[in-house]
Amino acid sequence: MYDQQASQPDYKEIDWAKIDLDNLHPADVADKLEELSLEEQKKFILAQPVEFSAQCIAEMEQSQQIELISVLPPELAADILEEMSPDDATDILAALPLDVRQSILSKIEKEDAVKIKDLLKFDPDTAGGVMNTEILVLDRNLTVDQAIQLIRSNAGEIEIPYYAYIVDEHRHLQGVLSLRDLFLGPASKTLQELLAEQEQHLIFVTYDQDKEEVAKLLSRYDLLAIPVVDHDMRLLGIVTADDVIDIIQEEASEDMQTMVGAGPDETLHTPWTYSVQKRLPWLVVNVFNSVISASVVHKFEGTIAQMAVLAVLMPIVANQAGNTGQQALAVMIRQLALEPFDSKKFWRAVGREAKIALVNGLIIALLVFCGVYFWTHNLKLSLVMGIALVLDMVLGAVAGASIPLILRSLGRDPAQASTIFLTTLTDSGGFFTFLGLASLFLLK
Amino acid sequence: MYDQQASQPDYKEIDWAKIDLDNLHPADVADKLEELSLEEQKKFILAQPVEFSAQCIAEMEQSQQIELISVLPPELAADILEEMSPDDATDILAALPLDVRQSILSKIEKEDAVKIKDLLKFDPDTAGGVMNTEILVLDRNLTVDQAIQLIRSNAGEIEIPYYAYIVDEHRHLQGVLSLRDLFLGPASKTLQELLAEQEQHLIFVTYDQDKEEVAKLLSRYDLLAIPVVDHDMRLLGIVTADDVIDIIQEEASEDMQTMVGAGPDETLHTPWTYSVQKRLPWLVVNVFNSVISASVVHKFEGTIAQMAVLAVLMPIVANQAGNTGQQALAVMIRQLALEPFDSKKFWRAVGREAKIALVNGLIIALLVFCGVYFWTHNLKLSLVMGIALVLDMVLGAVAGASIPLILRSLGRDPAQASTIFLTTLTDSGGFFTFLGLASLFLLK
Repeated sequence: MYDQQASQPDYKEIDWAKIDLDNLHPADVADKLEELSLEEQKKFILAQPVEFSAQCIAEMEQSQQIELISVLPPELAADILEEMSPDDATDILAALPLDVRQSILSKIEKEDAVKIKDLLKFDPDTAGGVMNTEILVLDRNLTVDQAIQLIRSNAGEIEIPYYAYIVDEHRHLQGVLSLRDLFLGPASKTLQELLAEQEQHLIFVTYDQDKEEVAKLLSRYDLLAIPVVDHDMRLLGIVTADDVIDIIQEEASEDMQTMVGAGPDETLHTPWTYSVQKRLPWLVVNVFNSVISASVVHKFEGTIAQMAVLAVLMPIVANQAGNTGQQALAVMIRQLALEPFDSKKFWRAVGREAKIALVNGLIIALLVFCGVYFWTHNLKLSLVMGIALVLDMVLGAVAGASIPLILRSLGRDPAQASTIFLTTLTDSGGFFTFLGLASLFLLK
Repeated sequence: MYDQQASQPDYKEIDWAKIDLDNLHPADVADKLEELSLEEQKKFILAQPVEFSAQCIAEMEQSQQIELISVLPPELAADILEEMSPDDATDILAALPLDVRQSILSKIEKEDAVKIKDLLKFDPDTAGGVMNTEILVLDRNLTVDQAIQLIRSNAGEIEIPYYAYIVDEHRHLQGVLSLRDLFLGPASKTLQELLAEQEQHLIFVTYDQDKEEVAKLLSRYDLLAIPVVDHDMRLLGIVTADDVIDIIQEEASEDMQTMVGAGPDETLHTPWTYSVQKRLPWLVVNVFNSVISASVVHKFEGTIAQMAVLAVLMPIVANQAGNTGQQALAVMIRQLALEPFDSKKFWRAVGREAKIALVNGLIIALLVFCGVYFWTHNLKLSLVMGIALVLDMVLGAVAGASIPLILRSLGRDPAQASTIFLTTLTDSGGFFTFLGLASLFLLK
């Protein structure tokens, strides 16, 4: 145990006015802590009971958790991590530098350390990496009465108390019973008999399934927890609805942010230098992509020199197609996040987007045709503009619907930088059709 | 009761090969139903037991639920809605045309109809509109033993069996106990005494709070359900984690899709004409916005006529700034979805984005400067390009970070069409700085 008295902090240096612990939930304390400097955070934690420290740190953002745990004395860090649920402790340890991790792990009580080392083996993006192992596991041969006795005697230790997982002697998952099923069941029946009476759709995942897949299943079947098994159906743990909420929020941020080439996990609290690192490569890609569309314009420099009004109108075509494509892209990325997708669905989606873009394109083209004719009194120019708009908008929609699926089939994140690729296509396509038609029909 | 025999469907006309009910979860049956025509859906439902129909329809997409319920005989529709949880039934009824709603409501059993009519009064976007009213409510003066007796006798009716809500004689919420707390508590203690022993952070919402706010709270405090009260703290219902998962998914779709001017609730399954209706107005706004940036280019038509290479380079400036702005925008919209925001945070966010854009801008500008110089050997042109890039990228970042907050403070959805407004700014800004600097320094 870490001796808290030995390093009592100097209370005067902490701005206690900033923190009022009365009636504050640990999640709220965590918020207030995040506003403090690392030094102040450390002093605060040193002055708190270990259990409360663990609750607060568990609620902080990961980048801040890591920094804070790293500056605490390893003995205290070990005590704090022991108080957390093993999956939370594992997430923090996995993100620590190897030497810090080792020095803390060596000070964690053996039983907890074994659990954590087991969890550290799982890929953090899989069911195994997010699962909770503190669950209520009952042998199928127990009677209801025996099961209730067992629960009473282990009451304090189980974090999630509303489902009991029924296994055979080799820990193969047989079914799930709610606490209500148990407490209301006939005392002398075995759990296996109780299970047999229920019509169960046993939904489970294997430890190596992607965590986003787990989130989809739990959400699809409106569950509060989903069991995780190995390939022999042996029960390993569960993923709960509150974990799934975090996974879904992460995924939503990831999709929206990677779509435009920002970092998947950027928040207001991540260091700005991290954001520079994450975004710069995609901005560079964007420069090279812009060069492609600029080179299309370059091909028509002669046309533009003769008719500078083309330079005025050409961004409108590219812009409309870009917007149309982004609408298709956004709907598609969300569909991929929510539903399974096969090639039949893919073609239906592309067809749907093309149809929408065609109708919207015709209406927008008519509007723009009238506007350009009213402004220039040049019928041919107005026609060229309208035709280029329709063509480029349909191109944008087809590209917007296809890019995420193409990226996915290449084994990439379907959202990654998708607007950047899309804009290259709609810009080049728009400039090419508009300037190409213009040089064919408008110049002498 | 609706007599199913009277309108037995013609089995031969249904493609039964498409549907294999063995071991299918209602959510999976719903998926298969969604692939069928409305006529086939109707025939399928007519042939199923009412309870199973209710489970399957509850899992379908809302637009399809509405169509299907509308074509069913009102007696059967009423029976099916009675089998659903009142909040699901209310959502469907609220979306039905008024006459259909009335005709079905008149056939629903009185007790259920009263519940549904009460729920229909709540705004569907608030806690009241998504809450579940079938909950376990216990008087604080009951002993643990009495409470357990009561639960046993009502076991079948309560959908969410893991929390019990403790109220006083006027149904004022006093606290929450888990079933475990109850079943493991000393038999003769009153619930009030049991509550007093626990250190509780009672988290609740009022019925008129926005459902996204409810989702934030449940997710922040890692709850499985959150109680909904009126302004006198009288308990009305609860919102559960699986409802919150749906709310979060809806919100993520809404943010991503409205950001580019697509419909908030569009999916692959919504009629394409609906998508045309939702997207067209924003495409029209985009046309008018493009006219603004085009008119900037128009001001410099003379400059471009003298130096057509400017038309080649100008989209690169606009494109980079647009991408930079979208990165800031994406991070900001996600932050607004995840955290409370005050003006201090706002300024910090804008400052952070400006800093990131400045550094990225300088690096990109250097890269582009070298590229343009290598291509044109025109030092002044390369310098103008670099300076315009840095200025427009910082403008894009500041705009991207501000637009969602400006929209919100105007009482609008922070994401709504934000990329459209952003692009107008970055395009106009980019064209103006680049062409402006060019006409100042490059032309004779």
